[in-house]
Order: sequence, then structure tokens, then C-alpha cells
Amino acid sequence: MKRKLFTPGPTPLPEEVRLIQARGIIHHRSKEFSDVLKEIREELRYVFQTKEEVLLFSSSGTGAMEAVVANIFSPGDKVLVIRGGKFGERWAEIAATFGVQVISIDLEWGHAVNPELIEKKLREDSGIKAVFTQLVETSTGVVYDIETIARVTKGKAVILIVDAVSGLGAEALCTDKWGVDVVVAGSQKALMIPPGLAFVALSGKAWKLTENSDLPKYYWDFKKAKKAQDKNQTVYTPAITLVCALRESLRLLKKEGWDNVLGRHAKLAKATRQGVLALGLQIFSKAPSNVLTAVEIPSSVGVKRLRGLMRDRYGVEVAGGQAALAEKIIRIAHLGAMEVTDIIVVLSALEMSLSELGYPVEMGKGIAAAEAILGR
Amino acid sequence: MKRKLFTPGPTPLPEEVRLIQARGIIHHRSKEFSDVLKEIREELRYVFQTKEEVLLFSSSGTGAMEAVVANIFSPGDKVLVIRGGKFGERWAEIAATFGVQVISIDLEWGHAVNPELIEKKLREDSGIKAVFTQLVETSTGVVYDIETIARVTKGKAVILIVDAVSGLGAEALCTDKWGVDVVVAGSQKALMIPPGLAFVALSGKAWKLTENSDLPKYYWDFKKAKKAQDKNQTVYTPAITLVCALRESLRLLKKEGWDNVLGRHAKLAKATRQGVLALGLQIFSKAPSNVLTAVEIPSSVGVKRLRGLMRDRYGVEVAGGQAALAEKIIRIAHLGAMEVTDIIVVLSALEMSLSELGYPVEMGKGIAAAEAILGR
Repeated sequence: MKRKLFTPGPTPLPEEVRLIQARGIIHHRSKEFSDVLKEIREELRYVFQTKEEVLLFSSSGTGAMEAVVANIFSPGDKVLVIRGGKFGERWAEIAATFGVQVISIDLEWGHAVNPELIEKKLREDSGIKAVFTQLVETSTGVVYDIETIARVTKGKAVILIVDAVSGLGAEALCTDKWGVDVVVAGSQKALMIPPGLAFVALSGKAWKLTENSDLPKYYWDFKKAKKAQDKNQTVYTPAITLVCALRESLRLLKKEGWDNVLGRHAKLAKATRQGVLALGLQIFSKAPSNVLTAVEIPSSVGVKRLRGLMRDRYGVEVAGGQAALAEKIIRIAHLGAMEVTDIIVVLSALEMSLSELGYPVEMGKGIAAAEAILGR
Repeated sequence: MKRKLFTPGPTPLPEEVRLIQARGIIHHRSKEFSDVLKEIREELRYVFQTKEEVLLFSSSGTGAMEAVVANIFSPGDKVLVIRGGKFGERWAEIAATFGVQVISIDLEWGHAVNPELIEKKLREDSGIKAVFTQLVETSTGVVYDIETIARVTKGKAVILIVDAVSGLGAEALCTDKWGVDVVVAGSQKALMIPPGLAFVALSGKAWKLTENSDLPKYYWDFKKAKKAQDKNQTVYTPAITLVCALRESLRLLKKEGWDNVLGRHAKLAKATRQGVLALGLQIFSKAPSNVLTAVEIPSSVGVKRLRGLMRDRYGVEVAGGQAALAEKIIRIAHLGAMEVTDIIVVLSALEMSLSELGYPVEMGKGIAAAEAILGR
């Protein structure tokens, strides 16, 4: 059976990306590889919407999150973390591990943060050096209003750090224009390549803070990484095949145009939501993102049974919930190399599986709602 | 022109390894991927020659070196580092970065460490907690006598930490039998896959020391990694395509047999050395390894000119020297997916290029010396 991934990373790989990995490997100290890096550096600035360098690390997104903490802070520094799901918790865990003092805004999972609450916290405590947040909290499918949050932090001493690992490419993120100071992203999401590369972009304000950080870093050292990239090099041997794959995917994204990429994600997400609602199901997220649609699954159906049936019968893999949501939601990602017909496929598998599991479904109703949006 | 890599990482990829990367990606939380990990865990024990778990990180080898320091030590700990080249220096740099006190044995580049010197240092200072060394110092092509060094550390409180990033698979390393406590390796060497994965194996003695370490670690946390791997999982999203490629390469290595892999490297290395010597050139390493042959290049020829000619005329890429050796040696790697005819190719390109650059070469003489060994 054809495997059809609707998971929020890894996402499906375009043919161009798959095939380039099968080529003979090139050496990372060759002119050929430097040329690849040069092109990538330019295109990453485009997708990160920044004039600053986008640093590249061979690691998962979590590695880049750790790198941000290790390069910018010192033990005892105080930071504000928005905790609205598993990845907000991850920021807090990493910061605490490195001796950084964490104040948090704890959200009910599924809810977005109110930027006014951030403003209030910053007003109450002038010692806060940074606000850590997600663009999209992947565990709940919620998108945060980064543009408004950036208005709160802009012009203040505090910096805004955004985990856009799943969000980049699916949701607008005007890094420089909005005044976002640090953006972290991963390779296996809207960038459409396998996992194994992670990215960090820093504003001038964030770069300045790296001067005062006294946490130990070696592999994650931003200054060394920047110095090497300025010469179209990497400090250590990078994941060469993934870097070459990235050039292919960035070319595809450039060809499509960044606004069109964002628009496509928005359209597919809207169609998915309408399709799910038409089946009488509820959307879990109060501020649903274009990354994934988190759908509440009645306990009579069961998340495990539903996911198993969709996978085994139709080859359609959707994600379950994380932590306390494990048995409560499925997460349908419409992220990366996705198009109209993919949404039809996942909604159809959902309809047929729900029906088989005894949930009352009017067959085709979810598809019809989606088509009304997708066919325009 | 066909590209022929004779660099000490990345090394050429077998066809099986190249092609598997072109497949559609699988999800890392699927049974399919767990089955891959299960098989890999077993086979890694075989190639690392240990009954212990081999931890897997999505990073370059340097990342795994940092992980070792962060998981085992605390600021103020005292360690002994063998510094015989760039990678010995790297151990010292990482340890110092993390506040670990470094005592070093500084070798003239190209020389191996005398194990008696290590014994003397440990006798003089009972506060030394670990000895850091390489199996093969890639910058000089020198192999260290780990078996004898392990006899020095075995039974003492001190642990022996070996960077086998380039050496594993090319030189014998009987981890458990010899009593090596920590082994670090990388994916892009004798394991014949692209860079992007790194490995760490720890003895029971080393695991115990992780209990006392108070350096911060999150991405590199050994205990979390072990706990996840025990369930055929990884803590964070791994470099999935590289993990799948690793399964292919481990199958190839198993089919060949580990002793045969080591024997092949030894034979190709010997033939390369004899070929080079027959051309009247000198081997730089006083204890030459089976990873690479470091060849002194007369200044009249010039490393840069020679490498450029070999690459541009014949598609043969060899490495230059590092740091002070940049213009003094070339490094011909015979590492990974290499066979008899590859050695003929590199020696032939060397002969023809030397001749073109005015170095007196009796054509075919290097090849003849190599064939005398390879043809047996």
C-alpha cells in the first residue's frame, strides 16, 4: 500500500528531494559543496524573512532549541516561557536544565496566549530577559499571534524567541519586519526534507546578548557557526545529503513563491477544518493553525482504533495526541509537500474509518465541505 | 567525470545505501521504524564489540564528543588528554569549554603515544578521572595502541575514552574485551553512510560516572537516550533517512564479516603505503593506520597543486593536511566502501599527477608495489 503521511514531521518528500539523496556523496570541503551552501544561505534568508544569517546545525530541532539557550543566556537569568503544550514545556525544561530561571504563562492546552498577558508579566518584572514561545504549538495545533507579541517586546531590552520548528512555511512569520529576535526551525516540516537539520536566525539584538552568555557551548557555538558560514563552510562535517536535499526543496519553494506556499497551507488547512466539522467532529484548537488540524475523537471511536484503521486499511498515517491528549485527539497535518488531493484522501480515509467504527457519518459530507473550498 | 572520494569522511556510499535514501520517508514513531532501530541496535553492538547499548545521536561526531564530556564530568574534574593532532586538541577544547581541567600529553604530530607515559601521568596524579584519546588521529593518520593503553586504565578508578570516529571498522577495537570505557564513532567513515549520525558506547564503569556529573545536558542526555532506545525509540526526531541507510550498511558489513572488514582495510592500507614508498615518497605517520595514508609531499610539487591536478584531471579527491600540515602532506583515505581497484585508481592518479608536476616518477612502479600485495 502507498504510505501517505499526514504527520507534523516528518512530512512527505517531493520526488526531487528524495532522488537527490541517492546521488554519490560530495565532500563538504569542496567548491561544489560551498556553492550549495551559498545558495542555501541566500534562500534561507528568504524563507525566514530576514536579512540576517540563518545558522545551520546537523541535529533535530530540539538541538537548535538547546543551542539558543546555551548561546544567549547565563545561569540565573530570568526568562518568560509560554507553556501551552509539549513544546512550550520543552523550552522551560531546556532553560531550567541550563540554570536559567523560568517564569511561565501556563495555558490550558488548546488555547493561544493573550499577548496582553505577556505585556503584564514584563511590566511586573523588569528582570525578564526573554520571552520564549512557539509560532505553532505542535502538540495542540494552536497558532500564537507572534506579530502582536513582537509589538510587546520590540523596543524593550527583552528579546522574543520563537520556536517555529513546525510553523515556518505554514504560518506567516515576518521575522525582521515584526521584530522577532530568534527563530528556530527544523528540516522535516514545511521545508520538505528529512529530519536531521535545524536552523537558528538571530536579530542584531539577540547577537549582542550572545556576548554576555557564559554557558558552555562547543558544538552549538553560534559565533563559530556564523564565521564558518560567512565563508560558505560549516564548522563540523554537516549532514551533507540533507544539505543537498535542502537546496532542492528551497528551489521548489522559491519557484512556488513564499506567499503561495503560505496561501496553500492556509487553504488546505481551512478545507480540512471544514471537512472535519461537516462530519460533526470538534476542532480541539481554539486558534487552529495551518500546520495541522487537531480533531477531538469521541471515546466510543477511540484514537488508537481510528489511527490504526486509517493506517492499515488506507495507508493514511495521522498523529495521535501527546501526553494527556493521547487518547483524545488525532492530529491531521497538512504540512509541507501537500496538495488538494491529499486533503481529499485523508478526509475520505477518516470518513470510511469513522463509519466502520460505528460513528454516524454521512459519507462524502466531509469531502463535499472540503471541495467547496479546494475547488475554488 | 566520475567522482572518486579518498577522503577520511565522507567516504563513498555503497549503492544499497544511496538508493535506500531515495525512498519515501517513514515516521519515527511507527512500528516499521522501531523494527529498523531494533536491528541497528543489535548490529551496532557487533561492530562496537560490546554487549552494552550503543547510543545514537543525530549530529556530527563532534556532537557526540561534547555529549561524552557533558554526561560524565563536572566542572573542576581533572582529565588527561592525548594531544597528537587536531582531534586530540578537540577533546582538550571541549573539556576546557565545559570547565574540566585538562592535563595533556603533547605529542609531536605524526607520532603515537607511548602507553607508559600515560601510566606515569596517572601514577603521578591520582586525581585524574579519565584518559581521552583517539583510536586513529585523523589529522596525522596515526593509530594509537588502545589495547595496551586499556591495560593501564583497567582496574583503576580512571576511565578510558576513545574517539574512534574515523578508526572504527578500519582498526581493531575490542571494546569490552580490552576494557575501553567510552567509544565515540561517526556515520560517514567505515560505516559507509553519509554524515549526520554519531554514536557513543559506555561501559558499566562509565555509566556509573554519569550519576555524578552535574554539567547541563538536554539534547545529549545519555540516560534519556538509553531509556528511549530500550524501547526501540529515540528521544527526539532522528535523522530518519540516515538511520534507514545505516541498516543497509550494517547488513553489508555483517555479510562481509567484521574480521574481514578489518582485514580488508589492513590490506588496502598496506598496499597504499607500499605503493607510495615505491614512488620514493615518505609516509608521514610513525605508526600508520589503516584509515588513511599520510604522504609527505615535496614542496617542489606542492600539496595544493597535486590535489588540484588529481581532482581535476582524474576525479580523484584526496585530503590535504590540517593546520601546520596543510602544505606538507596529502591524506589518502582507504576507508569504508573501498576495494582493490580503488587503490589502483588513486595510486595511478598520484603517479601521473606527480609526473606532470615534474617529480621524477617511474610510471607504474607504485602500482606494481601495490599489486604485489593486492593480488595475493
